[in-house]
Amino acid sequence: MLSEKCYELGSKSSIIREIFAFGQMRKAQVGPDQVYDFSLGNPSIPAPPSVKQAVMELMDTPAEEVHAYTAASGDLQVRRTVAESLNRRFSEEFTEEGIFMTCGAAASLNISIRALANEGDEFIVFAPFFPEYRCWVEGAGAILKVSRPEACGFQIDFQNLEQLLSPKTKAVIVNSPNNPSGVVYSEETIRRLAGMLEKKSKEYGSPIYLITDEPYREIVYDGIQVPFVTRYYRNTMVCYSYSKSLSLPGERIGYIAVPGRVQDYKRLMAAIGGAARMLGFVCAPSLFQQVVGRCVEETGDINAYKRNRDLLYEGLTRLGYTCVKPQGAFYLFVQSLEEDAYAFCQRAKNYDLLLVPSDDFGCPGYVRIAYCVAEKTIVGAMPAFEKLAKEYKQGQLC
Amino acid sequence: MLSEKCYELGSKSSIIREIFAFGQMRKAQVGPDQVYDFSLGNPSIPAPPSVKQAVMELMDTPAEEVHAYTAASGDLQVRRTVAESLNRRFSEEFTEEGIFMTCGAAASLNISIRALANEGDEFIVFAPFFPEYRCWVEGAGAILKVSRPEACGFQIDFQNLEQLLSPKTKAVIVNSPNNPSGVVYSEETIRRLAGMLEKKSKEYGSPIYLITDEPYREIVYDGIQVPFVTRYYRNTMVCYSYSKSLSLPGERIGYIAVPGRVQDYKRLMAAIGGAARMLGFVCAPSLFQQVVGRCVEETGDINAYKRNRDLLYEGLTRLGYTCVKPQGAFYLFVQSLEEDAYAFCQRAKNYDLLLVPSDDFGCPGYVRIAYCVAEKTIVGAMPAFEKLAKEYKQGQLC
Repeated sequence: MLSEKCYELGSKSSIIREIFAFGQMRKAQVGPDQVYDFSLGNPSIPAPPSVKQAVMELMDTPAEEVHAYTAASGDLQVRRTVAESLNRRFSEEFTEEGIFMTCGAAASLNISIRALANEGDEFIVFAPFFPEYRCWVEGAGAILKVSRPEACGFQIDFQNLEQLLSPKTKAVIVNSPNNPSGVVYSEETIRRLAGMLEKKSKEYGSPIYLITDEPYREIVYDGIQVPFVTRYYRNTMVCYSYSKSLSLPGERIGYIAVPGRVQDYKRLMAAIGGAARMLGFVCAPSLFQQVVGRCVEETGDINAYKRNRDLLYEGLTRLGYTCVKPQGAFYLFVQSLEEDAYAFCQRAKNYDLLLVPSDDFGCPGYVRIAYCVAEKTIVGAMPAFEKLAKEYKQGQLC
Repeated sequence: MLSEKCYELGSKSSIIREIFAFGQMRKAQVGPDQVYDFSLGNPSIPAPPSVKQAVMELMDTPAEEVHAYTAASGDLQVRRTVAESLNRRFSEEFTEEGIFMTCGAAASLNISIRALANEGDEFIVFAPFFPEYRCWVEGAGAILKVSRPEACGFQIDFQNLEQLLSPKTKAVIVNSPNNPSGVVYSEETIRRLAGMLEKKSKEYGSPIYLITDEPYREIVYDGIQVPFVTRYYRNTMVCYSYSKSLSLPGERIGYIAVPGRVQDYKRLMAAIGGAARMLGFVCAPSLFQQVVGRCVEETGDINAYKRNRDLLYEGLTRLGYTCVKPQGAFYLFVQSLEEDAYAFCQRAKNYDLLLVPSDDFGCPGYVRIAYCVAEKTIVGAMPAFEKLAKEYKQGQLC
């Protein structure tokens, strides 16, 4: 009698959240230092000091201004600042009109999907992919198609993608640096993707939009460059969040950026506004709009994540675990030691190792290890990882 | 090719927002003191000092905690605080399980509607009603039915309501104190409503939920008591926002409160979580969850609104305008001086008086005057209201 779709979504709630909740309980039981919680992408490094400074300064301005409604698309000056920063960094030509401030990446993506989707449209995602994509695409009455990854390295399998593209394809969603694999799409991958989408758009006589989900854009290592996708493909919508770069996941602040040359630009911006209204987003939180306006090119101390990645990657491969070395984000995507990653995660729990099975990411047989944690968690977890691997090696499993 | 529904919603954007944007432009042209902008429900009084104090204190705690994700339903301690405050003030028995923190009233309402609605369900609202109700109900695939108000005073016309109730009725939405009429439903109205919904729920063999939209709960005058609806009707969902009471409209912070005795309670809370997920709400903004937890029984200086109400009500009735004296909220709902309220508002614009026509509120022939403005705006506007009335009296209109 209640909404069946919503009840189903709410009752089988996110596996990630479930494991996180279990971790909270275990920490209360055995002490926080005894639980190795790698479940959640909650940044472990603090927001940079400029965030606190911005908040303090803003709280000295009149309260009825700083906490007021902004335009639905966001404060004009903040949007201008975001546009100028993107233009400076990526040689782009965004204007404030093409920037729509949002309540974080989930809002950016869901608004973008809704703005495009009519009943029965298809959206293609690449495995492994963030599980909420499914819920947003299906919530819009559209169909999610999953493209499998290249056998080695999680770049795009273009043969598989080509099979999935059809006149019903409304958009393709990419997430690079990737959650959960940590892989960054190379320039070559982006060029090939752009070429294929252009060709198919022409063939079908209607644009295929490219939605780029890039909250991890700044979180990359070893001097890697993340190609800025609008420069390679015309009909691109950029979905951003400051959750990871500024370590503000709870504050729900991000944006959608649409270049003026996108087909149907004015209509698309109107549809974005309409989608936000329909979803119940009035405006992005006003104080943090101003904060990100003041900290627009800042990040937290990303070196901490690099140290964690190296420690974890080297430690686990030494123990015999297999995974691609991540170039960005803060996840390690490790092959499960048995076919059923759920069973593997259950077994890991016996050592208070909290890992996320990859099944909901559309790529069974792996676990996601979020290494946005304290260094001592990684160091402390190594003996547990060792015991877990040993269990499998000794074939003690029934 | 884009989402037609979203494009339509976005392109004919909210009349209120449109008038507000016009006002911003006029203020830039002729100076802010020369424009009498009564368009937007943006609180004019500042947040109470305790809000600033709470923010400052919280910014002294570790950033990686205060800005972190909370549970989807909100921080446990904040939810407990909200529940305890409601219990203390309204002799209720909420628990933290029944409190779901949201990104403001729009989120509270849209999540509640989505949690209940299946395709073709009916939701009844009472004219005059907040225009976004239509967009949320229809966005959920449900049907909006509008019950007309009592001829005098905007209480419920029960005969009309009874005609609209049917086995398809999933919920009834009330908003008291009301935007835009300022009317507060009397205890008698709430009792009769509860009685009728109980009777019909029994008759149909399925519960009719009562959704109460009450961001103006604390904004009442002359010692009026707002009946707390859960005490009169079992299947009630309370949708609250701190936008008005704490003057934090831009911060997007509110909650849904569901009493444990509601039918299908556990399933309903799961559906609420699922609806929030589907809409793209991850958690309510974390800093302001903590802020409202610390300011849970505070309000801004509501006396300022009372002074505005008295000034405006007395001034306008003296000039011959007709309206019900509002007992709460910060709107005056005034009869248009010609049948077409749009035309009346256009004419008012000639005097830089920015009023909102009532058509989108489902109650043509009125204008909404938001008096959450500086006192001098009301004083300054009186000569303009006088000239406008004179135009009509002198029959100079073609």
